[in-house]
Amino acid sequence: MYKYSHGGNAVFEQGNENIIDLSANINPLGIPASVAAAIIREISNISRYPDNFSTLLRAKTAAFEGVNPDWVFFGNGASDIIFRLPRAAGASKVMVPAPTFADYERSAISYGAEVCRHILSKTGGFLLDNGFIKAVQAEKPKMVYLCNPNNPTGKITETALIKDLLDSCREIDAWVVIDECFMDFVQHTNRYTSKPLLNGYPNLVILKAFTKMFALPGIRLGYALCSNKALIDSLYFHGADWAVSNLAQAAGIAALDDADAFTKQTVEYVAKERGIMERELTRQGYTVFESSTNYVFFQSPHTFDLREALNNKGIRIRSCGNYHGLDDTYYRVAVSAQANNEKLLATLNQIFKEATVGKQS
Amino acid sequence: MYKYSHGGNAVFEQGNENIIDLSANINPLGIPASVAAAIIREISNISRYPDNFSTLLRAKTAAFEGVNPDWVFFGNGASDIIFRLPRAAGASKVMVPAPTFADYERSAISYGAEVCRHILSKTGGFLLDNGFIKAVQAEKPKMVYLCNPNNPTGKITETALIKDLLDSCREIDAWVVIDECFMDFVQHTNRYTSKPLLNGYPNLVILKAFTKMFALPGIRLGYALCSNKALIDSLYFHGADWAVSNLAQAAGIAALDDADAFTKQTVEYVAKERGIMERELTRQGYTVFESSTNYVFFQSPHTFDLREALNNKGIRIRSCGNYHGLDDTYYRVAVSAQANNEKLLATLNQIFKEATVGKQS
Repeated sequence: MYKYSHGGNAVFEQGNENIIDLSANINPLGIPASVAAAIIREISNISRYPDNFSTLLRAKTAAFEGVNPDWVFFGNGASDIIFRLPRAAGASKVMVPAPTFADYERSAISYGAEVCRHILSKTGGFLLDNGFIKAVQAEKPKMVYLCNPNNPTGKITETALIKDLLDSCREIDAWVVIDECFMDFVQHTNRYTSKPLLNGYPNLVILKAFTKMFALPGIRLGYALCSNKALIDSLYFHGADWAVSNLAQAAGIAALDDADAFTKQTVEYVAKERGIMERELTRQGYTVFESSTNYVFFQSPHTFDLREALNNKGIRIRSCGNYHGLDDTYYRVAVSAQANNEKLLATLNQIFKEATVGKQS
Repeated sequence: MYKYSHGGNAVFEQGNENIIDLSANINPLGIPASVAAAIIREISNISRYPDNFSTLLRAKTAAFEGVNPDWVFFGNGASDIIFRLPRAAGASKVMVPAPTFADYERSAISYGAEVCRHILSKTGGFLLDNGFIKAVQAEKPKMVYLCNPNNPTGKITETALIKDLLDSCREIDAWVVIDECFMDFVQHTNRYTSKPLLNGYPNLVILKAFTKMFALPGIRLGYALCSNKALIDSLYFHGADWAVSNLAQAAGIAALDDADAFTKQTVEYVAKERGIMERELTRQGYTVFESSTNYVFFQSPHTFDLREALNNKGIRIRSCGNYHGLDDTYYRVAVSAQANNEKLLATLNQIFKEATVGKQS
């Protein structure tokens, strides 16, 4: 029944600490310097229950995001919030684009909601367009998910379309959940984030996490932004108390210390490395769907399993065969540190040569 | 709608680091020595996703508990598991005794289950008896909770009664969830734990946590034991992945290093201090319901709010007025370190004298 369906479990599956894991999309610059010291300091408090309302962390995050602290809800990773959302909103019908992050659908199924998918097409470059809004108007769901930029495609949705979606959903009394977990890696992020729409649309929920930008997946720290106080209250009710550990709260507070500079440096690094990666993958014959964020999505022309071939050489990438709307020819790779990216590209070259030689012999 | 209903938030409410918090029931001996070092070592891994299956921690916990590792499921505290359980089991009707831990009922409501309560009476000393089994047979719930020893009463249920309950529930196809989060503080625990029944009863789930015995509420680490593989699978499905952080897994592994000796020492310490506390509370005129574990439950004869009076003097206890089946005259105090317990008893004496003087003047 249950099958682990994400990237990022490479080390444990392999028992191999030296594997290059490009199956999870974590900031290649690593963890902000202040985080380790903050965790060590906080150890003296672990025999106390965590603050159920993450008061200090919420205040600092609100300042960083430029929103009201009462609009911020913290969970045990964004995943925790995704599992609370359908219940908190009483969403009996949930609409998701496909392909996208699997847990929107799984949490809806867990709640007992009806799920409908809007399939994004390869010919449309997997871009979300007005067809999604038409589908929403036809299906009349109670909750609509939008991952922006989308996981695994890396495609971004323009704000004009999001406004149309929000207006349409307001008419049918539906929530719009925009997952911006990869938004801070985007260049000119202010043009794309839906944060300025929170005040005008109480049916809008934005999801974010410390996982990717601050390279803290091991800590579990995500948050929701929403101007609707009743929904925030309901998120607290429909899930366990004390969901965010003392150590996670302390790590988050520390990570935000130098967040603007850290984010800016990351965006520049990722943009440069992503450009190199996309050009070289294209040169090697892969169909690359240009990405706005810190991973690259592509289709392979080869008949062999690329993930398996790379895995045998110590590099783990994400096969996208288990996403609805995709098949085994699609892959996602993280834009990692320069040395890792170079290793990936060189190894792909080598694999191709070996496969060609194999065929000819 | 949502109101925080537990103890343990004292420090954050007060902004006061010097308060003596007896509202949460944490091991007075504190955290096992090896835990801090393990957390510090694990910081180097926080840019990796946690092992979704807590493989190493499960193996070590299984050895400690004397069960099969496949029978162990870890969550972000026992609370996380309590919120997964009704959905994982599809429990449309849930039965709870009252008073007991509030989240059994809240998680059932969140799932949309019908909840029925069996009220335990003061005249029966708040003991669970055969009346509970009769109520179960009459109501035919799909899931029955039993907190053993019970929170907040400290009362333990004998194994013979639990076997009858399990047999009755097997007949009506119902799950029995026994929360043993405070069981390791009990003397002669082997006589009372339901662990030996796991193999014979696939409808039995036992909940435990590192929170209380190892004084780690700030870490969030709880687990379920169940011999039914389908339920374990369903617990994974009906909640977020990566629920247990890397740091929590490392802390748990370290806490188990010397667990037998640590537990033994704790049980002796708690029994001695609890005896002193119960005798002195009785002497001061409180009605004490003899406890088997690391907190004491009593009724006050005074008309004033004891929690408020103690709070004004820097000691926080748990008022039990918000438990179903109780009222504002009932309180719960943790058996803490000797100095804290002495401070509590002396302060109660002082409060009584001040109240008496106030009346006479």
